[in-house]
Amino acid sequence: MRSQVVIVGGGPSGLLLGQLLHRRGIDAVVLERKTRDYVLGRIRAGVLETGLVRLMEEAGVADRLHAEGFVHAGTQIAYGEDMFHVDFQDLTGSPVVVYGQTEVTRDLYDAREKAGARTEFQVDHVEIHDADSDKPYVTYEQGGKAQRIDCDFVAGCDGFHGVSRKTIPLSVRREYEKLYPFGWLGILSETPPVNDELIYSSSDRGFALCSMRNENLSRYYIQCSLSDHPEDWTDTAFWAELRRRVPAEVADRLVTGPSIEKSIAPLRSFVTEPMRWGRLFLCGDAAHIVPPTGAKGLNTAASDVHYLYHGLVQYYEQNSPEGIDGYSQKALARIWKAERFSWWFSSLLHRYPDQSEFDLKMQRADIAFLRENEAQQRAFAENYVGLPY
Amino acid sequence: MRSQVVIVGGGPSGLLLGQLLHRRGIDAVVLERKTRDYVLGRIRAGVLETGLVRLMEEAGVADRLHAEGFVHAGTQIAYGEDMFHVDFQDLTGSPVVVYGQTEVTRDLYDAREKAGARTEFQVDHVEIHDADSDKPYVTYEQGGKAQRIDCDFVAGCDGFHGVSRKTIPLSVRREYEKLYPFGWLGILSETPPVNDELIYSSSDRGFALCSMRNENLSRYYIQCSLSDHPEDWTDTAFWAELRRRVPAEVADRLVTGPSIEKSIAPLRSFVTEPMRWGRLFLCGDAAHIVPPTGAKGLNTAASDVHYLYHGLVQYYEQNSPEGIDGYSQKALARIWKAERFSWWFSSLLHRYPDQSEFDLKMQRADIAFLRENEAQQRAFAENYVGLPY
Repeated sequence: MRSQVVIVGGGPSGLLLGQLLHRRGIDAVVLERKTRDYVLGRIRAGVLETGLVRLMEEAGVADRLHAEGFVHAGTQIAYGEDMFHVDFQDLTGSPVVVYGQTEVTRDLYDAREKAGARTEFQVDHVEIHDADSDKPYVTYEQGGKAQRIDCDFVAGCDGFHGVSRKTIPLSVRREYEKLYPFGWLGILSETPPVNDELIYSSSDRGFALCSMRNENLSRYYIQCSLSDHPEDWTDTAFWAELRRRVPAEVADRLVTGPSIEKSIAPLRSFVTEPMRWGRLFLCGDAAHIVPPTGAKGLNTAASDVHYLYHGLVQYYEQNSPEGIDGYSQKALARIWKAERFSWWFSSLLHRYPDQSEFDLKMQRADIAFLRENEAQQRAFAENYVGLPY
Repeated sequence: MRSQVVIVGGGPSGLLLGQLLHRRGIDAVVLERKTRDYVLGRIRAGVLETGLVRLMEEAGVADRLHAEGFVHAGTQIAYGEDMFHVDFQDLTGSPVVVYGQTEVTRDLYDAREKAGARTEFQVDHVEIHDADSDKPYVTYEQGGKAQRIDCDFVAGCDGFHGVSRKTIPLSVRREYEKLYPFGWLGILSETPPVNDELIYSSSDRGFALCSMRNENLSRYYIQCSLSDHPEDWTDTAFWAELRRRVPAEVADRLVTGPSIEKSIAPLRSFVTEPMRWGRLFLCGDAAHIVPPTGAKGLNTAASDVHYLYHGLVQYYEQNSPEGIDGYSQKALARIWKAERFSWWFSSLLHRYPDQSEFDLKMQRADIAFLRENEAQQRAFAENYVGLPY
């Protein structure tokens, strides 16, 4: 078998890249380890930067997003009983769009099927071969049968635990990582969200986030210990703790109900360099992880897709390697900015076990400065809605 | 003896307060533990915010500052071989003025003598009594003789090691502190400064600062180990290390010469709360210390003086306690912002012994974001030239 591009991983970055390439007549097969239903069952974030919305439009898959997504012109930041609004629209001219990553993925799968583009599910033992040559190929097993696809390029969109990054030799690869000393306990509940915008809340008891999927589907998070397990937290205990971590007037408005999903995620910052090795290009979580504060996970994947898509189009349509040659540098330049923002915003809002009284005062002063200073607020808003590609 | 106000400490904050009060007909005696020459021999920073310049004007002591001070419209920030300019004037409408703290102090002593205002030098065993009553008084020894001054108010301007802060009972006092794991080795040399503006430089070998006093008096600093001693560092070794920590084109322009002063200062962030206890008011280093990065030491003292001066004028001229009642809260609100800025700017530029590779990347990304983002640069510039009183 042969394909111009093999995309390893059928999550949102691989699917978005595939759809964009398809519309330019570039042939790309997607290999996914799990089933479509499994992929669509994963609960992820759902705040989309304008850049990602534009890419979805370019991929022809933005209709439902525009119909059902929620445009958020700003966000609320709370500390103790104080709360203030940051107006993205006023400060940057851009809002963000709240639309679940699951929905993005679903729209992309639907478009992919409609287009008749090839996706191979439940593939095992994917291996990327000769990525540093002109003739790379990918092997895998499916239903017990060995398969091989020869290609021009491989896009590694298979996430943090995928094979793509590990294909780059350690002698070439440099990894940077920070593990945070806490996790996020998140629940999904079929209740109306407490607020029409997100509320990021820094309290003496730790961080909390009031988020949402739609008018009757809320997503709430609280900072928790890494040693906690979801089953340690009853719904009652979760709601009680959430109430203690938001201003009283928010707690009073909170509508609770049974959780339909409950999970704990650790927080990690991670970047691998370079993001290209020969004809293998890493995209999204395969190359970098951000803590969820600031909602940059899916959006950083989208910026990688943007650079790689344009690089491949330039290669196939203009016979120029310039875009793909510059891919790693361009993608990383933006990634490090998003990493900085996610790290900073996490540091701003969470409680750390080793924080001194002085550190707490600095954290509080940082939040107060963000509240009071228009320039600081604008720098924050520009990051939140997404720095230019 | 009696005085409306007793000012403990004859450094710049005590002298500035005294001079401002004197011009409003409020009587204040200054008590100084050392001699005038000793005070004027202390080498300190010399970057003045506009607010301090205005206070010097109001005190009638700004003529020499205007004639001899250097107006700096911006500063240079270097990292590795890269360097960029932050234009305070463009971003905020304000420059800063480079004029040594020693010169500020000298001008204030000259004005004080000319005005015939009373300063007691070489006083020992200063004690502040009954500060929580309506009739405070201060005792001290001078030339072996016990003295007592009754007063309405005591201004504690006697620095970090002074008696004023310690007069506030521990049950009332709350202190916040951070000690940085490095010091600054500074030298003064009679050489032309390498640049007409300051250069803050973050290098792989640690921080360096190229500063100045005048056309032929340069002040340079390098981050050093806390276990270093000035005598460990020959002039030759200092210049060689400084050259390694600035971009090559700066190193090439550096004019070296014998040091006329060489010293190591530890870096500390410190704040005590409250800054008022009854009729005792803390000003400047008696209440707070900042690391020198960002040049906020003298300027934070000036903002305290501003609030206390206006509070006392309100008390004596309008018979209103409002200003002095609000002193601690107002002064602290601004102090914490300057503490935040000094802590952040220090964190941005220094090497820390426990920095991981990821931390270094974040530091580099922070500097790059400051370089590239206009809003971030404006927030920086607004802090550097001084937030409004």
